[in-house]
Amino acid sequence: MAKTNAGRFFEDYAVGQVIDHAVPRTVSGGERALYHALYPARHALHSSDEFARACGLAGSPLDDLAAFHVVFGKSVPDVSLNAVANLGYAEGRWLLPVHAGDTLRSSSEVIGLKQNSNGRTGVVWVRTTGTNQRGETVMEYVRWVMVRKRDASAPAPETVVPDLKAVLPPEDLVIPEGLDFSAYDFTLAGERHRWGDYEVGETIDHVDGVTIEEAEHMMATRLWQNTAKVHFDATFREDGKRLIYGGHVISMARALSFNGLANAQLIVGLNGGAHANPCFAGDTVKAWTEVLDKADTPAPGVGAIRLRLVATKGGAPFELKDDNGKYRPEVLLDLDYWALMPQ
Amino acid sequence: MAKTNAGRFFEDYAVGQVIDHAVPRTVSGGERALYHALYPARHALHSSDEFARACGLAGSPLDDLAAFHVVFGKSVPDVSLNAVANLGYAEGRWLLPVHAGDTLRSSSEVIGLKQNSNGRTGVVWVRTTGTNQRGETVMEYVRWVMVRKRDASAPAPETVVPDLKAVLPPEDLVIPEGLDFSAYDFTLAGERHRWGDYEVGETIDHVDGVTIEEAEHMMATRLWQNTAKVHFDATFREDGKRLIYGGHVISMARALSFNGLANAQLIVGLNGGAHANPCFAGDTVKAWTEVLDKADTPAPGVGAIRLRLVATKGGAPFELKDDNGKYRPEVLLDLDYWALMPQ
Amino acid sequence: MAKTNAGRFFEDYAVGQVIDHAVPRTVSGGERALYHALYPARHALHSSDEFARACGLAGSPLDDLAAFHVVFGKSVPDVSLNAVANLGYAEGRWLLPVHAGDTLRSSSEVIGLKQNSNGRTGVVWVRTTGTNQRGETVMEYVRWVMVRKRDASAPAPETVVPDLKAVLPPEDLVIPEGLDFSAYDFTLAGERHRWGDYEVGETIDHVDGVTIEEAEHMMATRLWQNTAKVHFDATFREDGKRLIYGGHVISMARALSFNGLANAQLIVGLNGGAHANPCFAGDTVKAWTEVLDKADTPAPGVGAIRLRLVATKGGAPFELKDDNGKYRPEVLLDLDYWALMPQ
Repeated sequence: MAKTNAGRFFEDYAVGQVIDHAVPRTVSGGERALYHALYPARHALHSSDEFARACGLAGSPLDDLAAFHVVFGKSVPDVSLNAVANLGYAEGRWLLPVHAGDTLRSSSEVIGLKQNSNGRTGVVWVRTTGTNQRGETVMEYVRWVMVRKRDASAPAPETVVPDLKAVLPPEDLVIPEGLDFSAYDFTLAGERHRWGDYEVGETIDHVDGVTIEEAEHMMATRLWQNTAKVHFDATFREDGKRLIYGGHVISMARALSFNGLANAQLIVGLNGGAHANPCFAGDTVKAWTEVLDKADTPAPGVGAIRLRLVATKGGAPFELKDDNGKYRPEVLLDLDYWALMPQ
Repeated sequence: MAKTNAGRFFEDYAVGQVIDHAVPRTVSGGERALYHALYPARHALHSSDEFARACGLAGSPLDDLAAFHVVFGKSVPDVSLNAVANLGYAEGRWLLPVHAGDTLRSSSEVIGLKQNSNGRTGVVWVRTTGTNQRGETVMEYVRWVMVRKRDASAPAPETVVPDLKAVLPPEDLVIPEGLDFSAYDFTLAGERHRWGDYEVGETIDHVDGVTIEEAEHMMATRLWQNTAKVHFDATFREDGKRLIYGGHVISMARALSFNGLANAQLIVGLNGGAHANPCFAGDTVKAWTEVLDKADTPAPGVGAIRLRLVATKGGAPFELKDDNGKYRPEVLLDLDYWALMPQ
Repeated sequence: MAKTNAGRFFEDYAVGQVIDHAVPRTVSGGERALYHALYPARHALHSSDEFARACGLAGSPLDDLAAFHVVFGKSVPDVSLNAVANLGYAEGRWLLPVHAGDTLRSSSEVIGLKQNSNGRTGVVWVRTTGTNQRGETVMEYVRWVMVRKRDASAPAPETVVPDLKAVLPPEDLVIPEGLDFSAYDFTLAGERHRWGDYEVGETIDHVDGVTIEEAEHMMATRLWQNTAKVHFDATFREDGKRLIYGGHVISMARALSFNGLANAQLIVGLNGGAHANPCFAGDTVKAWTEVLDKADTPAPGVGAIRLRLVATKGGAPFELKDDNGKYRPEVLLDLDYWALMPQ
């Protein structure tokens, strides 16, 4: 038992602590191909080197969410192995594209702690940073999780609740160097609607659905070296079900949103997100989007668009919460992000 | 609704119209590895760079059918999203090998239209062309599909039925530049029988079978960015079944045909094909081949062989049609193609 | 029938015979990504080019077991197509790392034959060698299988039972050129325990479990171009089950052993192995390890550790055999190997 990782418990965290996560990962065309096999991902910038170069990039970067998953996956053994719940995300920013050949590592700083009144669990806030082989930060985000205490009688730490931005202001978003949508090819991108065609408050039903299989969500989750037992071991939960990694639902919903948002090419900001209900194999995931905001950017022809992306299991589009303000049972995900779109 | 692609209906097509399909795709070793994971593909020329170089090529090209699937997949949102049936293929030719790093796009020209007598559907013929990043055509084929009308009262277009070759004559086949089988290594290829050993009329039972899983056919179909709902959404059909992409059956049957036709290394022509019956997860696919024709080619040591490849779900080999000339219910695929083989 | 490979029967083998196996294979980042998607593989040296370079290698090599599977897979059509049982392994050695771009082939020499007393089967011993495109041997191992006779009346060959080492002595192990663990990063590797912290006789329960799906084991097995019917065709066995390739269980158990043995970075020797019971989809694979031996090596900071890796389907850890000395029914694998670890 001493040699295996039992994970950290609530009393093992201290504000200011920095945890360097294990298992750096070099990505290649293999990860890209698998991402296309596991999700109906079709954004042209992530599919074609030629298209990406025509937009001013060095080549087609790894899907933004794949980069997120790699960075996130490394944090699981240190942050969420004993998590009861993944409570939220904030201040997520993509700072540099990830290309084939890059090696990613990640680390997390504990930025908040709050013991729950039951004395048996507490909330831990971490800011996780992904770094490439040149030591450059490729992305960062805050997440908070509810973690078990090892010993309920351990003293409660001083409560520190970080002051997090509810929404990233557009000026915080980082546009990849060189990005230029002024000669954007709308035909190759698969969508004629541009930034100016979307209105704040507009909703889009992405129409398509995918019924999820055990083999697929496990392969996806493993690919990011996320090894939380609950995703893989059918004997772990009493009901014999394997809980699907929340990030799998994020990627599935984002890929489905191509149909109506094919030009929302790059994700640059993650304002928040809730995994409203668990997802299991056999669920048919559908998605809809609400346009929350729009902003200009300094890059040529590039606009920012803030989107609420909702994934449901067979629910009617555009219904999110019940009369008590609770997520409806068919809602899987409520994600708030900034993307870049041609103007 | 306005932002999502509802697909074209029969009255949206006109003869002579050229549709440039969206989402160019750069392929890498990732697509090759996945092709080997999804199908029991073992043709040495598509497996080994060394073997391919010994045959005069620059390296091991992407499997011919993978190239076909990439080109085909792009056409789905524009051609077959509202298709009732995929009726046939003709005049398919592979014109240039596809290598890792190549970026493929595709476009289709409408070459025929014929409204059905019921007034609610019509047949659309398109010639689809795949192009690489240098603007070179890598393959082309004709397919025809039955498509719904949006409005049954829309006027019928003038009927144009294209004049298609029932079989490509050998002189139409394009041999990859430099291909030379004169120093072919039969041991490494896994089969001692060469072009001269196959006789017209000969039949081969490929013996092996593969039981198909949902996760596999969905991953394969997504990999080619073919997003037709019916393959992914178990709630789409009334029977709760996901229809397997016909191309998945083609690739599975072709891979199974290695056992008996390991030297039929490259596919260069597609004369025709019928998806005789639908395929679903749980079906065990088997395959048999009939040698239809043979021809010389100008390339050193290279012969062409015309093969009928039949896939069945558990059927006895060599039985194709019933007494009324209809495909037997266990027949999934009847494909007529030209391959290249060492002499 | 004449054109398909019926496989060799017992009477087709002769001691001294060398069989060159078909279908050479070029590996790329695609195979690496798939290995990470199919198994919870996290050893840093196989995940990160940077980590591997910091250990003196040219880059991150293909997982040792993936190299084994590629070499093994090629031997199946020639050695075990008509095998009744895979009886054992011995004298397995990894001699050179395999990198993306390498092309592997393999051949086997028959080194032993013994007809069984029933006269209908016999045991065949082969030494299989994997070679890269420069003709360098990358690995070798002995395995023996029980094979059916085509004709029970065929004369029994002279019995030759090879003299095999029960355990490779440490001096037989080949350390990759340049390997240097003197500046090893234990944090990035994910485990603080080093060679000196493991004691002979110590046992480690690897805690995690993975419930196996049909799609995954078939994709893994196909990836290595192992096409034995029994793994793919649900109609082949009377019980309708697809037997899982023993190598899939080996890789799954090895990947699970990361949790407790993250620093056992490279496998360099395979002393023996038994597939104690068959594995089927739905089984939840868990693993435990016993430290069998330790040895110094001449490489800087590199120690060798001999491990017994046991995979079970839901069994209690550390229980291997029953009172009669037979493997308990829940035991899937009993593997004895040498790995390299930082000192």
